[in-house]
Amino acid sequence: MKKEFKPTNAMYPLPAVLVTTCDANGRDNIITIAWTTNISRENSCVAVSIGGNKLSLRNIRETKDFVINIPGTELLEKVDFCGENHGDDIDKFDKAKLTRQDASMVKSKLIDECPINLECKLVDIYEINSAYLVVGKIVKVHIDDSILDENEKIDYIKLNPIVYANKTYFGIREELAKRGFSKNKI
Amino acid sequence: MKKEFKPTNAMYPLPAVLVTTCDANGRDNIITIAWTTNISRENSCVAVSIGGNKLSLRNIRETKDFVINIPGTELLEKVDFCGENHGDDIDKFDKAKLTRQDASMVKSKLIDECPINLECKLVDIYEINSAYLVVGKIVKVHIDDSILDENEKIDYIKLNPIVYANKTYFGIREELAKRGFSKNKI
Repeated sequence: MKKEFKPTNAMYPLPAVLVTTCDANGRDNIITIAWTTNISRENSCVAVSIGGNKLSLRNIRETKDFVINIPGTELLEKVDFCGENHGDDIDKFDKAKLTRQDASMVKSKLIDECPINLECKLVDIYEINSAYLVVGKIVKVHIDDSILDENEKIDYIKLNPIVYANKTYFGIREELAKRGFSKNKI
Repeated sequence: MKKEFKPTNAMYPLPAVLVTTCDANGRDNIITIAWTTNISRENSCVAVSIGGNKLSLRNIRETKDFVINIPGTELLEKVDFCGENHGDDIDKFDKAKLTRQDASMVKSKLIDECPINLECKLVDIYEINSAYLVVGKIVKVHIDDSILDENEKIDYIKLNPIVYANKTYFGIREELAKRGFSKNKI
């Protein structure tokens, strides 16, 4: 039986990713984000929702770029740590023992341990009800060859990504079906 | 070893949800969407990316509302069908044998078979590189009691949601950890 509830952010599960930024002096930060999505094929745009008081948002306003680093579950403890602590107080790269890697086209650093890194240039920031939706254009993609299949596509089972829902982290399990499988069935 | 690739929408996995809309005459439609996220706690706003030529976008412009219906994997074939077919040609509710349920606060219908339904009123539509990011405020939440835990919170393992990446559907597996578990470890 269905029950009615007050409005709440129940749109889950969403991917737990690490977003890296830096300020004009090159001081960098890492923030854990689950509220993110692709938004357009043309120019490969993505959106990331960041609270208004966050260091990461100030950094993005300064340098106009950021990197989305997609971790596997082996990094779960570091992912949780970067979401639970503030970059104003500590250097999260050092504290979580994550390795800075220079990007090709942006100032923000890549996290070497993450198998996928998406370098993004800022397109726009929309203020929506006290949240800030940061829209970036992906300008370079780095993928570790250990998670590529024979067609050079990402094997998401090998990536073993983390999804987040209701203050809990989950893994993904085996492939259920390929898109289009319902053809001729319905 | 990391390889560099051209820009591509690699920000996955994302949830496969069914978005229902209707036009001013009450003719409704269903579209399958993976490019969606929560964006703000205040007013519980969500964003859904919809291509510019879509019937669902025209419907949302007309009636200023939509519903996000979150399916479990038992609905996978219907989810795929609604993503692979156009509502201009067919009635997807009828064809996929899904049941219309009246919403409390919006004109768009709920899908009865989906354990979670989020009624949304349109806040704004942003055009970003030929995609349209539809922002809605959740005004009512319906959850089937079969997926609620003893604290009336959603049990995402019971929901058994579908996540999508690289033209493939996946399920989620058991809980890995609760948010905050890294405290005192790093």
